Amino acid sequence: MSNQGNPGSAQAGTQGRVHREVDPAQQAVEAKLVENVVASFAGCPDPRLKEVMVALVEHLHAFIREVRLTEQEWRAAIDFLTNAGHITDDVRQEFILLSDTLGASMQTINVNNAAYKDATEATVFGPFFVEDSPRVELGGDVAFGAPGEPCWVEGTVTDTDGDPLAGARIEVWEADETGLYDVQYDGAKRSARGHLFSAEDGGYRFWALTPTPYPIPDDGPVGRMLAAVGRSPLRASHLHFMVGHENGRTLVTHIFPEGDPIGWNDSVFGVKESLIKRFERQPPGSPTPDGRVIEGTWSKVRFDIVLAPPGA
Amino acid sequence: MSNQGNPGSAQAGTQGRVHREVDPAQQAVEAKLVENVVASFAGCPDPRLKEVMVALVEHLHAFIREVRLTEQEWRAAIDFLTNAGHITDDVRQEFILLSDTLGASMQTINVNNAAYKDATEATVFGPFFVEDSPRVELGGDVAFGAPGEPCWVEGTVTDTDGDPLAGARIEVWEADETGLYDVQYDGAKRSARGHLFSAEDGGYRFWALTPTPYPIPDDGPVGRMLAAVGRSPLRASHLHFMVGHENGRTLVTHIFPEGDPIGWNDSVFGVKESLIKRFERQPPGSPTPDGRVIEGTWSKVRFDIVLAPPGA
Ligand SMILES: [Fe+2]
Ligand SMILES: [Fe+2]
Repeated sequence: MSNQGNPGSAQAGTQGRVHREVDPAQQAVEAKLVENVVASFAGCPDPRLKEVMVALVEHLHAFIREVRLTEQEWRAAIDFLTNAGHITDDVRQEFILLSDTLGASMQTINVNNAAYKDATEATVFGPFFVEDSPRVELGGDVAFGAPGEPCWVEGTVTDTDGDPLAGARIEVWEADETGLYDVQYDGAKRSARGHLFSAEDGGYRFWALTPTPYPIPDDGPVGRMLAAVGRSPLRASHLHFMVGHENGRTLVTHIFPEGDPIGWNDSVFGVKESLIKRFERQPPGSPTPDGRVIEGTWSKVRFDIVLAPPGA
Repeated sequence: MSNQGNPGSAQAGTQGRVHREVDPAQQAVEAKLVENVVASFAGCPDPRLKEVMVALVEHLHAFIREVRLTEQEWRAAIDFLTNAGHITDDVRQEFILLSDTLGASMQTINVNNAAYKDATEATVFGPFFVEDSPRVELGGDVAFGAPGEPCWVEGTVTDTDGDPLAGARIEVWEADETGLYDVQYDGAKRSARGHLFSAEDGGYRFWALTPTPYPIPDDGPVGRMLAAVGRSPLRASHLHFMVGHENGRTLVTHIFPEGDPIGWNDSVFGVKESLIKRFERQPPGSPTPDGRVIEGTWSKVRFDIVLAPPGA
């Protein structure tokens, strides 16, 4: 922190803050402890690890001192983390949900994906990516039978000079219209996810599902936290993208439909203005770009992806 | 924090810190996110919970921005917490070990146990307390066969006016000379722990074991963290006490032998000057206070316990 002065003393009126006076002798005891803990990392052989641990200790202690954390609250925090650990398995990641709902995931994305010219902005990764998504050809359907309104997605992948990036690997994944990802169902079936590669001219196109809002899994400690603070677990509707190319910085992002009912109240703070796209709903039975026959409505969206240079 | 100004910008030279410039547009993006996350708690019906969550968010984000946390480091943190959750069970509590080794437990103790006149100081609770310790009479032996040098412990329990507190419940627990608590062995046998009650004059006395240094359990993520930063898992030798009485603030503390090889390098920062006691070693076969015959050496220590008033 830039001001280590007096974390236990009266706080200026930031939102939700309470003024508290802590006597100077007590403050000295608390400050001395922080100093001792920081000093314990003096022999750390890795300077970066040392930097991170020292900053972690300083902020953790400042937090405890500032709110005058009670022993009961400390115990509740231990129990929260324990419960989060016990509900976490190969397909449920409560610590990512925690990081997401506190905005920590999005802040990490911000820190590591500074704006670079007109490169597409990044957003949260989320807990539902899996490595072994099925490959589809250009124009293929990543729904694999998952329920939802068909959605035609097309665009280009270019660098920030506007030159096409051929062969970019485009991973997409999304919830179905019931609000579930494939990994949330029993069994190993893969659906509403897939990967494809951009064409020579950087173009890409595929069928997916029109995104709909869904709650993050809220039957665990994170869901109980959201309920206790009066927040909704609903995510803004979105389609996940991860785009990689040897000549570009890997992009992890979503696109969000314009006019979404959740929108900026996204439970994980992932929405960015530039990622809101117009999903145009098409009348039942109207002709599709590739001649596919669809009885009901379908939608289409364009998403032109611009990758920053590697290491930008 | 008292200074919310500019967590992403150059940091004055606190230990281990690196100066970094973050461009103002980028800082604005990051600050706006913090504002959005804080605003999401606006509807929290519990003012204290709101205060704690807002402060947590502010410090967490300040930490991420200050160290410019990488996505790889974020992932390592998620994995760390996941592993800590998975190793935690009824008798192993990795999150308490984490809190202990970061000094967070001790800081919480400090915040909630401000000095009050000559009341005995508190220290960390640790993860090895159990509810169902055996009762012993005054002068009884809490070792229950655990290996180690016998140690006679005696003293009084009084209030801060010096008046005796009769019937105070004194819980004691410790590691044996191999460095293990009973709960770290297989099976449900209780040893090197027990509880007793102070006499009418506030006096108490019991046999235990002379405390020896032991490592906190270091075969999990916390142990690997300590190794990575070059810290020892050893705790200063200690005997745990928890003392409760209806007319006193419950005291959770240890006593530490004078001249201990670990001492101030305690891995959980629990040592306080006032809690260091002289454990006097007695020659082999020398007479004991209660006529017990001991062939080898034994030790004795006096610990006069002073409880602050309830709610102090
Ligand atoms: Fe998602
Ligand atoms: Fe201990």
